[in-house]
Amino acid sequence: MNIVLDAMGSDTAPEPEVRGAILACKTLPVEVRLVGPQDIVRAALDKQLKAQGLLGKNLPIEIIHASEWISMDDKAAAAVRSKRDSSMRVGLKMVREKSTDGFVTAGNTGAAMATAKMVLGMLPGVDRPALAALLPTATGSPCVVLDVGANVDCKPQNLEQFAVMGMMYARSVLKIENPRVGLLSIGEEEGKGNELTRETFPLMRELPLNFIGNVEGRDIFNGRVDVVVCDGFVGNVALKTSEGLGKLVGDSLRGSMTSSFIAKMGALLSHTALAGFKKRLDYREYGGVPLLGVRGVCIIGHGSSNERAIMNGIRVAAEFAKGSVNAHIEQELAHLAERLQAAEPAPPESSPE
Amino acid sequence: MNIVLDAMGSDTAPEPEVRGAILACKTLPVEVRLVGPQDIVRAALDKQLKAQGLLGKNLPIEIIHASEWISMDDKAAAAVRSKRDSSMRVGLKMVREKSTDGFVTAGNTGAAMATAKMVLGMLPGVDRPALAALLPTATGSPCVVLDVGANVDCKPQNLEQFAVMGMMYARSVLKIENPRVGLLSIGEEEGKGNELTRETFPLMRELPLNFIGNVEGRDIFNGRVDVVVCDGFVGNVALKTSEGLGKLVGDSLRGSMTSSFIAKMGALLSHTALAGFKKRLDYREYGGVPLLGVRGVCIIGHGSSNERAIMNGIRVAAEFAKGSVNAHIEQELAHLAERLQAAEPAPPESSPE
Repeated sequence: MNIVLDAMGSDTAPEPEVRGAILACKTLPVEVRLVGPQDIVRAALDKQLKAQGLLGKNLPIEIIHASEWISMDDKAAAAVRSKRDSSMRVGLKMVREKSTDGFVTAGNTGAAMATAKMVLGMLPGVDRPALAALLPTATGSPCVVLDVGANVDCKPQNLEQFAVMGMMYARSVLKIENPRVGLLSIGEEEGKGNELTRETFPLMRELPLNFIGNVEGRDIFNGRVDVVVCDGFVGNVALKTSEGLGKLVGDSLRGSMTSSFIAKMGALLSHTALAGFKKRLDYREYGGVPLLGVRGVCIIGHGSSNERAIMNGIRVAAEFAKGSVNAHIEQELAHLAERLQAAEPAPPESSPE
Repeated sequence: MNIVLDAMGSDTAPEPEVRGAILACKTLPVEVRLVGPQDIVRAALDKQLKAQGLLGKNLPIEIIHASEWISMDDKAAAAVRSKRDSSMRVGLKMVREKSTDGFVTAGNTGAAMATAKMVLGMLPGVDRPALAALLPTATGSPCVVLDVGANVDCKPQNLEQFAVMGMMYARSVLKIENPRVGLLSIGEEEGKGNELTRETFPLMRELPLNFIGNVEGRDIFNGRVDVVVCDGFVGNVALKTSEGLGKLVGDSLRGSMTSSFIAKMGALLSHTALAGFKKRLDYREYGGVPLLGVRGVCIIGHGSSNERAIMNGIRVAAEFAKGSVNAHIEQELAHLAERLQAAEPAPPESSPE
């Protein structure tokens, strides 16, 4: 498996990328190509290899030159247009040309999505891509939530496509044969929700998938549902609310546990247990979220990724490619289109845009 | 302070209500009136008073008769129309007639909101009411999030009014002189968000309050902002996602901590520290959320409220009444209306409805 990594994505690039690439090559069956300005990336890589005593050890890491990069401060749309030799663009072109199995970046999410849409194009039957996050649950198997921020003001047909993509992702990568798919709303009955969910509910019921109806925010974590479908604004708020609460929990526990001698003893003794718990909530363990719906594997990580997060992003990309998620999504959407055509003539487009 | 309590609201009514009323009368400077079917409530109250050795002790608890009640399974709109002598309606009428300082229910949220709107009416200048939740933060002072479920598909002017109501609530009850008000979105810059937040942002900037711009889900918990304004669908998802993660955290810690002898020792020793932490996330400690914007004090609690949650709901109602929150909201909205009239002629209503 061969993965291309944007060497200039994260907030403190290229160090976390270089370290993550080394870690990945040491622990996973992957080759990594680092994309970025040759001199900068070479210097950072050699420094790390030297520090780790790996210089000359022939790790399967290669450097691909790109003269520019898009920073977090760049306006996504403008940067995508103007920086024609950016590390994101060069890396994604390699995906398009099938000279690699997947692309990973911890860079500007907006720019990565726009570049991926432009360079890779969309899978047939997909109008808009979706970012699919994995969140921990009470049962241990993660819950796929999509979209968590690729699109806002979605239409019902976007959510239908998200449902199919999420199902195929859960089946191909998480190995859940018949994933339970829920529509994120604010009450379980069909009539509960906003205009979008009320319009989407009957459409979802007709889809050839295991639709369990509306689910609520709390169901993301209780193991009742495998795939949660929502508009990207709502999903992003849910994701970031969870991150914020996770951080508060961690900080509070640390704080309250060291507030007295007895509690301090307790904290020492239960340290291992806590570490195990925190790991389940830590985005660094998940590595990054796949952008579903584009023609190729594109994983987008957190700007504050460390080497572990980068390594996990590479792992996610490899699993995604190995599971042939895109081929499965394409197949399923083609079936769906056939079914819809057989059932009724295509309705006229009544969108006000 | 005199508070009316719906005796038939919670999932296991009237026991939690009766016990909560007793607890409140023992610990707070309040008188409580329990509203519900006389026979049922009297029997439950006497049983509890007897069990606690309080029979004949003259606690300031009175029973007000209402022949019907609205259950969780009732359709809100239909129940509000058909059950004309429900405990909610009888209780809220007492608020309207000013024979009590506030009303508390742990019943059907939809029915409680509809009854409150119908019986109490709206404060001048408020188009729609909002449920305002308090969430814990890293700094200790809670964050007001509104709306968490009273209204979906909000318009910008609804969010403007929520901002003013949330500010006055934070000032009057939480005693924050100049609360920082944020608009919940998916990025900090003005242009980030969906159609609703992009239209609302410039309007919020013109309001006479401490608007700090867009905030993200994680900011609810980090102490950056005192009042978070959002559409009720989004707020409800954020609230229930937090509840779900909070439960996962609690269960995981219990589980992982008892998984080995050493961890078990640790769990025993840090028990007190954990209890302190859990208390901060526990909705039972907050008691209930006020319905802001109606003419009177109306606090709505969780259906699964226990006696402690009921007692805290009564406490919240008393604090709300004492802080004259409604008078302050009314005043502030009247100022706002004057400012808007002075600044420009009223724009024509261009809503597509």
